[in-house]
Amino acid sequence: MSFNRLFHPRGIAIIGASADLSRIGGHPIKALKASGYKGGIFPINPKYPEMHGLKCFPDVMSIGSPCDLAIVAVPAPAVAQAICDCGKAGVPFAVVLTAGFRETGGEGRTLEAELKRAVAESGVRIIGPNCQGMLAIQERVWAVFGGVADETGLRPGSVSCAFQSGGFGYGIVNLAEAQGVGFRYCVSTGNEADITTPDLLSAFLDDPGTSLAFTYLEGTPDARRFLEIGRKSLETGKPILVWKAATSDTGAKAAASHTANMTGSYDLYRAAMRQSGIIEVDDVEPIVDIAKLFAQQRLPRGNSVGVLSISGGSGVVFADRAAREGLALPPFSEPTLAALRKIIPSFGSAQNPADVTAGVFNDMSLFTSTLEIVLADPAIDQLSVLLASISGRHVMRAAQAIAAAAAKTDKPVHVAWSARREKSPEAAEILEAAKVPFVTTPVRLAQAVSVLARFAGDRRRLLPRKAPPPGAPKGLELPPGETTLSEAESKAVLQAFGIAIVREVFVAAGHDVGAAAKDLKGPFAVKVVSRQVAHKTEAGGVKLGVPPEGLAEAARTVTDNAVKAVPAAKIDGVLVSEMAQGLETLIGVINDAAFGPAVALGLGGVLTEVLKDVTYRIAPFDIETAHDMIAELRAAKLFDGYRGKPAADKEALARTLVAVSQMAMALAPRLKEMDINPIFVGPAGQGVAAADALIALKA
Amino acid sequence: MSFNRLFHPRGIAIIGASADLSRIGGHPIKALKASGYKGGIFPINPKYPEMHGLKCFPDVMSIGSPCDLAIVAVPAPAVAQAICDCGKAGVPFAVVLTAGFRETGGEGRTLEAELKRAVAESGVRIIGPNCQGMLAIQERVWAVFGGVADETGLRPGSVSCAFQSGGFGYGIVNLAEAQGVGFRYCVSTGNEADITTPDLLSAFLDDPGTSLAFTYLEGTPDARRFLEIGRKSLETGKPILVWKAATSDTGAKAAASHTANMTGSYDLYRAAMRQSGIIEVDDVEPIVDIAKLFAQQRLPRGNSVGVLSISGGSGVVFADRAAREGLALPPFSEPTLAALRKIIPSFGSAQNPADVTAGVFNDMSLFTSTLEIVLADPAIDQLSVLLASISGRHVMRAAQAIAAAAAKTDKPVHVAWSARREKSPEAAEILEAAKVPFVTTPVRLAQAVSVLARFAGDRRRLLPRKAPPPGAPKGLELPPGETTLSEAESKAVLQAFGIAIVREVFVAAGHDVGAAAKDLKGPFAVKVVSRQVAHKTEAGGVKLGVPPEGLAEAARTVTDNAVKAVPAAKIDGVLVSEMAQGLETLIGVINDAAFGPAVALGLGGVLTEVLKDVTYRIAPFDIETAHDMIAELRAAKLFDGYRGKPAADKEALARTLVAVSQMAMALAPRLKEMDINPIFVGPAGQGVAAADALIALKA
Repeated sequence: MSFNRLFHPRGIAIIGASADLSRIGGHPIKALKASGYKGGIFPINPKYPEMHGLKCFPDVMSIGSPCDLAIVAVPAPAVAQAICDCGKAGVPFAVVLTAGFRETGGEGRTLEAELKRAVAESGVRIIGPNCQGMLAIQERVWAVFGGVADETGLRPGSVSCAFQSGGFGYGIVNLAEAQGVGFRYCVSTGNEADITTPDLLSAFLDDPGTSLAFTYLEGTPDARRFLEIGRKSLETGKPILVWKAATSDTGAKAAASHTANMTGSYDLYRAAMRQSGIIEVDDVEPIVDIAKLFAQQRLPRGNSVGVLSISGGSGVVFADRAAREGLALPPFSEPTLAALRKIIPSFGSAQNPADVTAGVFNDMSLFTSTLEIVLADPAIDQLSVLLASISGRHVMRAAQAIAAAAAKTDKPVHVAWSARREKSPEAAEILEAAKVPFVTTPVRLAQAVSVLARFAGDRRRLLPRKAPPPGAPKGLELPPGETTLSEAESKAVLQAFGIAIVREVFVAAGHDVGAAAKDLKGPFAVKVVSRQVAHKTEAGGVKLGVPPEGLAEAARTVTDNAVKAVPAAKIDGVLVSEMAQGLETLIGVINDAAFGPAVALGLGGVLTEVLKDVTYRIAPFDIETAHDMIAELRAAKLFDGYRGKPAADKEALARTLVAVSQMAMALAPRLKEMDINPIFVGPAGQGVAAADALIALKA
Repeated sequence: MSFNRLFHPRGIAIIGASADLSRIGGHPIKALKASGYKGGIFPINPKYPEMHGLKCFPDVMSIGSPCDLAIVAVPAPAVAQAICDCGKAGVPFAVVLTAGFRETGGEGRTLEAELKRAVAESGVRIIGPNCQGMLAIQERVWAVFGGVADETGLRPGSVSCAFQSGGFGYGIVNLAEAQGVGFRYCVSTGNEADITTPDLLSAFLDDPGTSLAFTYLEGTPDARRFLEIGRKSLETGKPILVWKAATSDTGAKAAASHTANMTGSYDLYRAAMRQSGIIEVDDVEPIVDIAKLFAQQRLPRGNSVGVLSISGGSGVVFADRAAREGLALPPFSEPTLAALRKIIPSFGSAQNPADVTAGVFNDMSLFTSTLEIVLADPAIDQLSVLLASISGRHVMRAAQAIAAAAAKTDKPVHVAWSARREKSPEAAEILEAAKVPFVTTPVRLAQAVSVLARFAGDRRRLLPRKAPPPGAPKGLELPPGETTLSEAESKAVLQAFGIAIVREVFVAAGHDVGAAAKDLKGPFAVKVVSRQVAHKTEAGGVKLGVPPEGLAEAARTVTDNAVKAVPAAKIDGVLVSEMAQGLETLIGVINDAAFGPAVALGLGGVLTEVLKDVTYRIAPFDIETAHDMIAELRAAKLFDGYRGKPAADKEALARTLVAVSQMAMALAPRLKEMDINPIFVGPAGQGVAAADALIALKA
């Protein structure tokens, strides 16, 4: 849907307008007058014929002029009626500032349900409730209360944002603006009873005036949409920055009493962000720095950066952070080095990160040459210039040289400079005019540069990927109702989706185990099969390393044990399986309330259980994404062979992950969770084999 | 030694003074005049009778007035002579700005050696060479060149600092000062040919005017002194912040061509910092925030913090970061909650982190009450107030309330506030006057609050610790020269220091293996013993799981294999060992050039080799420190039992680590390195047993 009239309203009604400008119902009136909003301002309050020099209306239906937005500040019990009135009056959007809805529990929840009904029936789309309102800065729309109502001087720009905490969100806006970021749309979304964060992010990407969007998010039931939004971000080249908050237990509890948004699994949010090219941030400074770098509107062709500093330490700490963030500082090529060595004094360094020393400022043409030499090196994708805290004449001339060099290249060029702006305002203005971003420290610059490189890399890497189509195999039938499939049934489902299992045979109760297993190679795993015995090992229902001659006894034992443990269990029989060899891994599927089906991959045993070395992706996904999962494991090296063991069949594991992701989508309406644990990855070329599996279904 | 005359010089000579104030030899003259330095300023230059209105001297011996500091700016080949002149003239300190010493290699290295001789012979103590100089701000000493020579308005304060990169260090000073930090002594140390970073840090701790010290450090051969400095920091309650740079390969290479300081092992720096209560930082913002919080001069009694915010999101992100940093946000006690609930509206939250909502500002006594209620809760050790970006009247009254509440408690009280100072300067001044620190974002505040808690915790935790005395057992004799001890010899050394080894017997070549092993319990490990065969496994010199009846053959095989692999090897015999049981770990000792002996602990197999799950401490250390090492392993949970295995004997492992640390100290003059790998940790109460060991000695 189009939010055009929300962001460009011809007129704005304030329902619950207050004669007291210090009250919530007064703030937007004060702000809209101060901001210079050009459309109609319509206070709604039946008690007054006029207010603050404006005609006051008894209700929104009486306005009689074009009105595209209502700001609602009446008490919570009156909000639903106000929305219905908007519907009658043909006002398409409302911003509900009022709090006291589901975040307060009890009656508040009832009021929110009523409000949602009013939204559905009236067709009015709302922001909030329990929000601080929105800004459309270029349009001078200040539909807000609180401190931001007084901040009508905010710098216009091309950053748009949505945040689930109004006070905190406008704090971010304030701080970012003070550091040089300009804004376009800012929306405090509150409880998101109607319009959600993903709705807004999507609209920001569609907006030609927005070049970067960020959101502060506690959680959303709409989380799966981040996949589509991330893709659109890569396609449009406009980055999306997400601050996923409430990642800690205490944080999640605090969020629950705040806007009561579903905070969800941080693991899955991270997976979705990585999978779709969304940039994760966790404080204001990164937002500022990243926004500045992207504002240059240049993306690097590769992952390398050349560094020129006038102080050795700056280069060192830049290199340290770059290494941590996976950014490459390759050695300069021989011609580059030779050219630099002619310029840089012996106590400096021509190697990347080069220390040109402050001496180059004695002859500014030398500094210009160093810039041009490094930019001409084809192995260098970006140039970072580290100016420490120089001021005065030096920095002005340095700024001119950098601006000139940046104009002659399409590579990103950026600066770390820690002097106070007020000491050298001209230098700052020269860089700004040339669209050369500058941030305060080399560490912050390295961090932001790495984000720029990663986003550009994600465009190359992720955009060509296509998730496989879902599609269930013909004839697959699942038992009705909430139930857990037995191991044999679970494995049959896996096989139907082309997932390899260990060589094994199911022997129905009462049949000859030895005869049934005659084509298999011992030793064996013998396991009881019963839907009622989900925890087979704990029930004594598993025997490992059973030799062929011990099969009959093992089958008896596991059956007896299982019956003892779960007397009501219906025993279907036993599974006799070859003992699989290879690297022990596990694959899980969860069907998340916000993301839907997601696949987990972990390494078996201690690595998963003690170190939580598990990685996730939202299903479905392609084989490249599956390889990303494998590579992301902290112990991924194990796949390349370890202590004389052969390299594992990563290709087969990746194919299996893709198949599991397709299976998860196909079964989604019925799937509660699934565990394939362990699944052994054989030596390269020899495939994988699921040794155990459990599928839990919902009704 | 006392740096009193360095920091409070009665007169300052500038050797190599320049008539051109834009040259390095002119900068300090300009700066000292601009700063208002009250002592004598003595330009030294034989070409001029006077300079910049000052009497100019042909050499430093001719000054004839008290002069405690020389600033040296002559070319590198003339610097050693300048220092000798200072010695003759009785000038005790010099700051050598000149570059072109060991950082340039070749001839520069020779010049630095000459300079060091001049220092030793003259008794003059020097800062530098290749440095940007030093400031003593209260004394108006501006012994510097470069941009900082123009920055004579820097705010005085109680933070002192030393940095191995002048340009970058003064960049940090600039940026920190712009954010409200005041400085006392700032020293650019350059190549540290004489006075080192640890010398200065120690002097800062002795200085009554310094309350916090930080250093930017690439490396120092003096690194072991950090242990003593950390301890002194805890004793005095003055924190030391260390930015250890050059932690990446590229960073280390860049540092090598910068000041050529030995960058050393980051693992050991981190170990030393953790071991001694030094605070690690890695960018400017943390320095600023931590300095602000410590300036309140209050330390919390415990690890908990109470949070009051006026915006839910601020509390959420504070809680997220606090959780990551190990800070506790405990639930408020029942009386606290009951009292808060009477004040906080239903759409806020009384639970820690509490969201009091902006509504409390309508009646400021309510806000005051919330502050007092939380501060009175005995379970709360610090109070963080999150004000988002409120401005104007509200923030002024909030600042008054916070200042008043802070005055009534000795608990740390701090504020996150992201409005621009210039919009509400009175509020900033009220907080500053009350010594209530404020930082810009809730995340940064949580980070700094966690550092405050950790430092206070380290005082309680680390100060009572006493490293055990070294001391070699009587009669311990090591073979002369550089050599590697055989496994049997290495184990004998371990045993001499009380370290348990597996039950085993050494069987000299030609003796009956079966008879020798008759008191041991099979199966056995059989290993060849020869100093020349250090890599036994690779040489085929090890057989595991050998039954008693296979001993003779196994002994023959390992001997034959070893001789085949290392034909020149002198075979002493074989070791027959019981196969040890328990959790596989490894203990290593390195004898580091900067730190001396240090002990490493890792978990056996994949955890150490693939995940680098290894932890370090500098030797010697006590049992509490050993327990810290164990707890620091990412897979530490394994010690508590896993998949039905019993809990491991952590106490015995800790005692062993202490013994190894003592052994490392005792053997330090001869020790190259030592590996005890594996050493098995048995079930609780059953001790540890070293299964293999290798000691390499230097001459």
